Amino acid sequence: MNSIVNVIERTFEEQANGTLVSPPRFRLETERGDMVFTAGAATAFEKVIGFRVYDTYANDLDGHQQLVCVFDSDTGVFKGIVIGNLLGAVRTGAIGGVAIKAMARTDSKYIAVIGTGIQARAQLEAAVAVRNIKHVRVFSRNHENREAFAAEMEKKLDIEVVAVDSPKSCVQGADIVICATNSGTPVFDAEWLEPGVHINTVGPKSVKRHEVPMELGARSSVIVTDSIEQLKAYPTPHFLVGTPDEERIIQLSDVVTGKTLGRKGQDDITLFCSVGLAGTEVVVANEMMKEALC
Amino acid sequence: MNSIVNVIERTFEEQANGTLVSPPRFRLETERGDMVFTAGAATAFEKVIGFRVYDTYANDLDGHQQLVCVFDSDTGVFKGIVIGNLLGAVRTGAIGGVAIKAMARTDSKYIAVIGTGIQARAQLEAAVAVRNIKHVRVFSRNHENREAFAAEMEKKLDIEVVAVDSPKSCVQGADIVICATNSGTPVFDAEWLEPGVHINTVGPKSVKRHEVPMELGARSSVIVTDSIEQLKAYPTPHFLVGTPDEERIIQLSDVVTGKTLGRKGQDDITLFCSVGLAGTEVVVANEMMKEALC
Repeated sequence: MNSIVNVIERTFEEQANGTLVSPPRFRLETERGDMVFTAGAATAFEKVIGFRVYDTYANDLDGHQQLVCVFDSDTGVFKGIVIGNLLGAVRTGAIGGVAIKAMARTDSKYIAVIGTGIQARAQLEAAVAVRNIKHVRVFSRNHENREAFAAEMEKKLDIEVVAVDSPKSCVQGADIVICATNSGTPVFDAEWLEPGVHINTVGPKSVKRHEVPMELGARSSVIVTDSIEQLKAYPTPHFLVGTPDEERIIQLSDVVTGKTLGRKGQDDITLFCSVGLAGTEVVVANEMMKEALC
Repeated sequence: MNSIVNVIERTFEEQANGTLVSPPRFRLETERGDMVFTAGAATAFEKVIGFRVYDTYANDLDGHQQLVCVFDSDTGVFKGIVIGNLLGAVRTGAIGGVAIKAMARTDSKYIAVIGTGIQARAQLEAAVAVRNIKHVRVFSRNHENREAFAAEMEKKLDIEVVAVDSPKSCVQGADIVICATNSGTPVFDAEWLEPGVHINTVGPKSVKRHEVPMELGARSSVIVTDSIEQLKAYPTPHFLVGTPDEERIIQLSDVVTGKTLGRKGQDDITLFCSVGLAGTEVVVANEMMKEALC
């Protein structure tokens, strides 16, 4: 995860410098389901071009796969394919790690995680890669899931991970809150947050379905996303679109390159809204292939 | 090739019935080169959805690859990938075979082939799959290429294949002419053609660069293509676009399904302009995978 956070950080530099190409999604539509393509190229540092493709079929049969195909952006030569659904979460996790590195207080020690799925795991792993974390609390409505998450991640990360039985006891006192659920209603109350906390929201964030409270926008002194273009292009609007806070949303690439601050003061609340910048999948797949070849 | 010609024929039935989905190409563009996606689905008989992707980088390094990825169009489940440049030629060959089956005289015995590349080989193989061919002549400007083609294809097809030293001696007397070159100027004279001949043109066919004579349109009583939409969308216009013959171009799917005739009389000259109907690559890849699993 460390090396992937680093290449994603460089990819945001490419975005700021104009060498990241990420056109809008392309869809092949049929009555039963679609294939969706997110293509992209990072031509300066990573020198990759390629795409991710996944299906929108509404069934849970085994055998659904995401493919990420990677080519050399200097030559067009084929480099390889990563097949499977793990890469997407690793990618989103690494973007979350870059956001935490750029926005969370450098002395952050306690992380609250709400959600126990593959995205929550990847976010936590990336957070630990960029901050000196001492303690993690995790909440999920499902008792078994949160206990399993705590046991597994404590072992994996070699950090104390405690499952707690309410979102309030999870969030209170946290330096960083990772929200990675499928919830359409807020999973915590903005009043529970401490000054100086940073929040990553990975789950639903439309005006109709959002896992974080609406008022979090107004409470946050800095609001960042990985792609304003993608955030504004959601089929149902983002929960901040149309609010006074919309104008304050800045791009993670501008924070990474030092053009704007990710945090103004130690007591600020800062918010990162993850949308999954297109093109980053190809960079992650390339990095995974490099490591697999070592 | 027999089974691939058959599934391509069924795919043209799907096109006629409206169950073939083939949106316009999608391109990911960078300064050095593009990735081009031709996506498609055949949802009634073949039940496949997927895409081909290839690059436009202007270099001849090893390692350029076309990928064709296949999913089940009922469920979205991933079926597999075919990697390599052979599939495209097999696909175009099979489309040529369907055209010959639908348009050439049923008693066709002699085939003339101009061009000795991978496309010429695949066209000939498909032609032999649909007509009882007794004799083949081949011409290329390169002596070694035409001799190698003749020796190789005679062995592969178990039919007499003779290399000849002029295009005229190749084309004269032929029942079927396969033109599969990279030539930008006509490689034969329309005057050399016999009544009743059928021509497949696979190579350049724009108004600026065309391997067949311009007057071939007017000489042909039936003109067919695999996709009128694609034929009209060429960046430089097709050599028949803007001529009085343009209105007479019909779609191979309409011939395959019996809606229109591919040949009106035994002495007609008939012309098939191959453009490579998008979506057919996925059907061919699926068929190849079925056979590989046998």
